[in-house]
Amino acid sequence: MPEYEKIDGKAVAAKVLKETEATIAEMKAGGVTPGLAVVVVGDDPASHAYVNSKEKKCTDLGLHSVKIELPADTTQEKLLEVVAELNADDAVDGILVQSPPPKHIDEEAVVLAIDPAKDVDGFHPVNVAKLALEDSAGFVPCTPAGCQRLLMEYGIETEGANVVVLGRSMIVGKTLALLLMQNAKGANATVTVAHSRTKDVAAVSRGADILIAAIGRPHFVTADFVKEGAVVIDVGINRIEDASRKSGYRLVGDVDFDRVAPKCKAITPVPGGVGPMTIAMLMANTVKAAKMRRGI
Amino acid sequence: MPEYEKIDGKAVAAKVLKETEATIAEMKAGGVTPGLAVVVVGDDPASHAYVNSKEKKCTDLGLHSVKIELPADTTQEKLLEVVAELNADDAVDGILVQSPPPKHIDEEAVVLAIDPAKDVDGFHPVNVAKLALEDSAGFVPCTPAGCQRLLMEYGIETEGANVVVLGRSMIVGKTLALLLMQNAKGANATVTVAHSRTKDVAAVSRGADILIAAIGRPHFVTADFVKEGAVVIDVGINRIEDASRKSGYRLVGDVDFDRVAPKCKAITPVPGGVGPMTIAMLMANTVKAAKMRRGI
Repeated sequence: MPEYEKIDGKAVAAKVLKETEATIAEMKAGGVTPGLAVVVVGDDPASHAYVNSKEKKCTDLGLHSVKIELPADTTQEKLLEVVAELNADDAVDGILVQSPPPKHIDEEAVVLAIDPAKDVDGFHPVNVAKLALEDSAGFVPCTPAGCQRLLMEYGIETEGANVVVLGRSMIVGKTLALLLMQNAKGANATVTVAHSRTKDVAAVSRGADILIAAIGRPHFVTADFVKEGAVVIDVGINRIEDASRKSGYRLVGDVDFDRVAPKCKAITPVPGGVGPMTIAMLMANTVKAAKMRRGI
Repeated sequence: MPEYEKIDGKAVAAKVLKETEATIAEMKAGGVTPGLAVVVVGDDPASHAYVNSKEKKCTDLGLHSVKIELPADTTQEKLLEVVAELNADDAVDGILVQSPPPKHIDEEAVVLAIDPAKDVDGFHPVNVAKLALEDSAGFVPCTPAGCQRLLMEYGIETEGANVVVLGRSMIVGKTLALLLMQNAKGANATVTVAHSRTKDVAAVSRGADILIAAIGRPHFVTADFVKEGAVVIDVGINRIEDASRKSGYRLVGDVDFDRVAPKCKAITPVPGGVGPMTIAMLMANTVKAAKMRRGI
């Protein structure tokens, strides 16, 4: 038996989804069905797989689901029209345009076009600012929100803890830093953001009570990055070649799990750690949007 | 002779103001006079002193200056009308409503009402988001921008440096953290934000190559907070009683300068450190606003 606790993202995601389902059932009993619209442009198989799993989850939970599939040659103008229609559609509480869109699309402009009150991805500047300003009426991006929820569900104290976030992307790293430094429950951490320019990133990481890896480099975090008894959250999802698999690859995190885990108090695996939380938090954000929009 | 370098904020501010003055002269030669409007509500003597010094600086530099003094019983509605008029006034490039307004005023709503393109204080959510998103078209709040400029002018390398920011306010602490962690010149630091919930703040601070104090507690940072050879930036301006002064008080920073300075490579005094930078950066932001608004 390992001494470390393996954080079960599937189980926590299932709990979040169950809560969300119950809330949706209540809302429906009150005559309101929250709705999520997902737009995907082009033929990327991974994007379609994501979109389909989101649609299925909506159906499972009883959400009103709108899936809009647009051809790869859809113009920016047309996509913005679709977003405008969804903004105006009262049955739609959340809007998500699957990333990445084809290269001719200006993704930033698309995000800006989404009504911030329906921006369940939390990427609109209005929601970015709300996060920084600690305004809980905003939407927190799903993956960082999922990381925080995992910590909370496992009773891992963040208040006063030294958190080191590896990576400064707005999708995960910087957002998680802003989230965990808030004066709020599940936060109040002393947060350090490290990145590609950090000197001696292993030494900085060893200062962490909670180490969060979000850099997108397979097995970047080795045992020497981790203090005995630390908690490690691995946000990375990287494909590496694996001839033993039929697909020819397997998914690994940013953390060298086998070598790091024995030093940890708790650690998320990949897959089955942070991954399942993202879609669960998306559903929770959609219900939050529905409640706020409809004044519930 | 002390071994440490005392960072001369007055000299750097004078340099910034001189540059700004030269830019204004060029713009005026081209037929454009940048303008700053400052609104003050009520009779607070400190607020009026700030506003008057801003007005004088505008005049010195050749800026078009608008000072609007409103009585303490000005309604929220009236103040928002004034802001709307300034938004619409093409001669005004920057708008600043002096803080704090009287208690019956909703300051957040006032900030939101300012055209983000004229928000030279950098407090509007659109500019907060631009800072987080590393969009250099936004306005960085003047005091954090001034701290960064001091570091740059003194050739203090931030790239890869361990920066510890004490304080998580949006006006200084969190903003400075977002600024110094950007992938940009004068930034690229490994940034830690510490605050009231931080455990062993002295130990966290001792990890800093550059320690920035922005907590508003007189002489909070003592010698044991500082690593030999660190750079210390003191953003605090606190009044403490001093019977030897005619006023009965004197201004001190968050840092116990006399005991901390001998351990430092460089340190800002209070007064004369960060303080003078704020107004200089305000003037620079106003010129930036004028250039952007007028497509120069």
